[in-house]
Amino acid sequence: MAFGLSRRELQPKVRLLHGEGGRHHLTSLEGLAALSLDALSSVAYGPEAIVVVLIAAGTGALNAALPITVAITVLLAVLVVSYSQVIAVHPDGGGAYAVAKKDLGGWTSLLAAASLVVDYVLTVAVSLAAGAASLASAFPGLRGYLVEVCLGILALLTLVNLRGIAESARVMMLPTVLFVVTILGIVVLGLARAHPVTVVGTADTVPVTESLGLLLVLKAFAAGCSALTGVEAIANGVPAFREPRAKRAQRTEMMLGALLGLMLLGLSVLIRRDHVAPRGGVTVLAQLTAGAYGDGWAYYATNVLVALILALAANTSFGGLPVLMSLLARDHRLPHLFGLRKERPVYRWGVLALALLSAVLIAAVDADTQRLIPLFAIGVFIGFTISQVGLVRHWRQERPVGWRRRALINGTGAIMTAVAALVFLVSKFLEGAWVVVVAVPLMMLLFARIERYYRAVGIELGLGRIPARPARSSSLVIVPIGEVSKLAEHALSAALALGDEVVAVAVHSDPGTAAALVRRWNQWNPGVRLEVIDSPQRSLVEPIVRYVRNAAQGGRQIAVLIPEVEPRHRRYQILQNQRGILLATVLRARTDVVVCILPHRLSL
Amino acid sequence: MAFGLSRRELQPKVRLLHGEGGRHHLTSLEGLAALSLDALSSVAYGPEAIVVVLIAAGTGALNAALPITVAITVLLAVLVVSYSQVIAVHPDGGGAYAVAKKDLGGWTSLLAAASLVVDYVLTVAVSLAAGAASLASAFPGLRGYLVEVCLGILALLTLVNLRGIAESARVMMLPTVLFVVTILGIVVLGLARAHPVTVVGTADTVPVTESLGLLLVLKAFAAGCSALTGVEAIANGVPAFREPRAKRAQRTEMMLGALLGLMLLGLSVLIRRDHVAPRGGVTVLAQLTAGAYGDGWAYYATNVLVALILALAANTSFGGLPVLMSLLARDHRLPHLFGLRKERPVYRWGVLALALLSAVLIAAVDADTQRLIPLFAIGVFIGFTISQVGLVRHWRQERPVGWRRRALINGTGAIMTAVAALVFLVSKFLEGAWVVVVAVPLMMLLFARIERYYRAVGIELGLGRIPARPARSSSLVIVPIGEVSKLAEHALSAALALGDEVVAVAVHSDPGTAAALVRRWNQWNPGVRLEVIDSPQRSLVEPIVRYVRNAAQGGRQIAVLIPEVEPRHRRYQILQNQRGILLATVLRARTDVVVCILPHRLSL
Repeated sequence: MAFGLSRRELQPKVRLLHGEGGRHHLTSLEGLAALSLDALSSVAYGPEAIVVVLIAAGTGALNAALPITVAITVLLAVLVVSYSQVIAVHPDGGGAYAVAKKDLGGWTSLLAAASLVVDYVLTVAVSLAAGAASLASAFPGLRGYLVEVCLGILALLTLVNLRGIAESARVMMLPTVLFVVTILGIVVLGLARAHPVTVVGTADTVPVTESLGLLLVLKAFAAGCSALTGVEAIANGVPAFREPRAKRAQRTEMMLGALLGLMLLGLSVLIRRDHVAPRGGVTVLAQLTAGAYGDGWAYYATNVLVALILALAANTSFGGLPVLMSLLARDHRLPHLFGLRKERPVYRWGVLALALLSAVLIAAVDADTQRLIPLFAIGVFIGFTISQVGLVRHWRQERPVGWRRRALINGTGAIMTAVAALVFLVSKFLEGAWVVVVAVPLMMLLFARIERYYRAVGIELGLGRIPARPARSSSLVIVPIGEVSKLAEHALSAALALGDEVVAVAVHSDPGTAAALVRRWNQWNPGVRLEVIDSPQRSLVEPIVRYVRNAAQGGRQIAVLIPEVEPRHRRYQILQNQRGILLATVLRARTDVVVCILPHRLSL
Repeated sequence: MAFGLSRRELQPKVRLLHGEGGRHHLTSLEGLAALSLDALSSVAYGPEAIVVVLIAAGTGALNAALPITVAITVLLAVLVVSYSQVIAVHPDGGGAYAVAKKDLGGWTSLLAAASLVVDYVLTVAVSLAAGAASLASAFPGLRGYLVEVCLGILALLTLVNLRGIAESARVMMLPTVLFVVTILGIVVLGLARAHPVTVVGTADTVPVTESLGLLLVLKAFAAGCSALTGVEAIANGVPAFREPRAKRAQRTEMMLGALLGLMLLGLSVLIRRDHVAPRGGVTVLAQLTAGAYGDGWAYYATNVLVALILALAANTSFGGLPVLMSLLARDHRLPHLFGLRKERPVYRWGVLALALLSAVLIAAVDADTQRLIPLFAIGVFIGFTISQVGLVRHWRQERPVGWRRRALINGTGAIMTAVAALVFLVSKFLEGAWVVVVAVPLMMLLFARIERYYRAVGIELGLGRIPARPARSSSLVIVPIGEVSKLAEHALSAALALGDEVVAVAVHSDPGTAAALVRRWNQWNPGVRLEVIDSPQRSLVEPIVRYVRNAAQGGRQIAVLIPEVEPRHRRYQILQNQRGILLATVLRARTDVVVCILPHRLSL
């Protein structure tokens, strides 16, 4: 999922997708491969989520899965139409954050931003957990090590993303097409056969704890809605398409809707016909796979493919979160530092934070997909609701032809997704949804506080006002010196170029050494005064700081120029410079002078 | 233990001991409190070490403990006389490292240094392990948690030393005197009674695995020699004494020898008379305590006092290792950085490294003192041997009156300590002594390599030769600018003072923002040219680096002045400056220009 991107923001991403040269290059089909993996891969856990909820009312209740899936497909249709309108209204990328900022104001956009962050983390966690379950369906030996499998794949993704990757829509095309064909193959072949080819897994005996009441149906509906996560990604990625962008993106959105709806309904019909129930250590999708393809190589290949697709879906978060963070940084809601998305070191913090949070979640729920789905869906559905409410507001303000019909569609969608989010929140509160209830407001508060700080700083720095003209004053450059050497020569040359006056300062704890230095200095006669400070305590920093503070009494601009020996090999770094770094740090903390570092490169 | 200090090096330590004003202020008695805790506290584990070795040949073999202790006391006498001579010859502090450097040459001094580092670590580990055993003797509930107790006390010591402490000889005096009185009280009272007041602990049944042969006696002797660790500290600390320093230090050394010898012999006689053998969970010293004082409050108080003294002994390492490291740094054998002992951040690394290594050792041996003693003694005895061999060499060269007799004393001492070290090394090789055999040469190699590097750097920097006179050139100061603000005004003012020419550089990814900036710049008209670099990829650093590199083509001195907003509160640090730090880092790595940082302080 990548939400709320302005066109300018998305340009780097597009370049990532297509190499340095190209922009706006996705065809509709390529768009499907690049932007809908997250949504398509949801079929691996969405139908299962329904079954897992319903089984609480006994195997008979499983019959309700089909009508619930039909309802979900209707919601899918509403969402797809709704997002087609989002695409038309926000051709620059209209994710929940951007829509909320434009049409709904401050706090709603903060809510959108916070729930998006939650989603990025949960996309990773849910996809990896479902991928591990898929792998364990094929290789029962892994069943005891789901967390380890997840963390292993996560480590791999993290490493790849830390190094930086050049994704390409074309590379993603093959597994995406293969995945869709395989799933549709399961549906077609499964329905063609009179009964399942093979039954895998062992039957779980789940105690019947509830009756099939309205609440259970609502819970199953809400759980199944997790299959809809990711349908917003195309609307966010509009700028990545080839012209006519909006048209192509809408076409892709429709294709996604059709494919996802088809897969969900097909799988659901199969589930009903074959009385599929949760079976020990084997996913629902794996059972359907065995039913259609048998338990030969095709079974293994399908499960591995599903796991791969889920890993790729998880990977989209690593691309998406930095985009959102840079957007927030530009709105002064995160440290400005995150606005520098192209700077590798900055990017790495985002990757590591995402990996760490997902790892904690995975470990906390023992890599159980079903326990993550409520948290996941709440975040996603908040986003759905916000962007659709935003559209309703938009239609009411703009009032184009047919605005009432459009507002009705978006309004219906908003109500349905809001209900789903609420059902999750209420029914799963104690089972984990409270995490979202705690985390989202905390993040909103954080964003708001950061924004307030930056606003105060802006006022203090006089942003938006014309400052006084800079004044030119005379300057004194102070150069700490250890010995008479080429390093001293280099430093004094640079200091003479920069300062109206230059003074060299040496700190010595021993009168003998000091006298020797003065002797050699006079021999050298560099044309610069040398001041020797006595420091019997062998402290270097303190006496220099004191000297600098005394010098800074006048109106002159004071600079301290610290020459630093830079070894060629990294391993020698520890042997050099530390004194300079220490001095520079203390000077910066305790004085207002300019601290200048002059690198002096060694051949070693 | 603090070895090998020149007078200049020790001055800070003396100040530590006596506050800012005083120097050379220790009387003989104060010297005992300040410098011999490490040696005196050895009675807590030395006699036990003998008993533990001998028991392998059955309880009958324990009778050998007394003659072995007599032999050790003879060695103690030799060492004390020997170190009195060291004090006379090296009144500026004559530790093994200094002696070896002066009289024995390069590699021997490296060996001395490496074994001293090992010793500092082991002093901490052994003292804490023995202290924990002492506590557990009084409080049996702690027996299962010896490692935890050790690590807890270690954490406390580390924290105290990280904060920095002002020790004082007078503060140490009370526990030292109390300790000596208590131990001598055990001897006197114990011998006065016909039989032990109380027997504590449960009898261990140790299988008889060896006969009482020469090797076992040698092993017991070597193990018992661990009681001698620390007798060198006074010789190292001569500069801390009041004048006449050498005389006072010699008197303290004699006092230490007499007290330690008396305690060792007395405890040994008691051990023989009461047939003390290792008993479950109770130290030998604790058994003797119970024998003399009973198991009432005096028993608890004594064990706690012993643990306290051992913790204070461990603490001496935290004072000693930084001194040794600064000495090595001045000889170019450790990063020069460690020469700055008065700088808190530097000091902290030494404290942390020492704590970490001791913690690893304690955990590795499960806080079992006896398993640490071989490693401990090898290091200490290498130091003993080196300083005595150095003295022999000294006498042979100087040939003062009676030099043969003196050389004989030191030679005998050297042979005895070398034998003890060898016995440990051979008999305990597989049980842990190999760690020393691996660690010491590795450290020697490290010191030698660092020395070689610094020598090469010295040649490259032209140390010892008069360099060319520094040349004055013209300068260009480049100022990266974000917006027109007070920050920009401040930065340009500083730049105008420093540079012959100043240019402001702005990086923008958006033509609209860039145009607005130029408009406001012209409105401001600060008298400085503004260059706007287009960076559609939203990279800040790369375009500036490229600009700076182009500017650096001419013969001018280039400086980049980076204004950094410094929030008043630390917690806001993350919100500021990161871009500047990133830019400064990259510029330093990839260009040779001067990088200047100008702090701009906020009121927030």
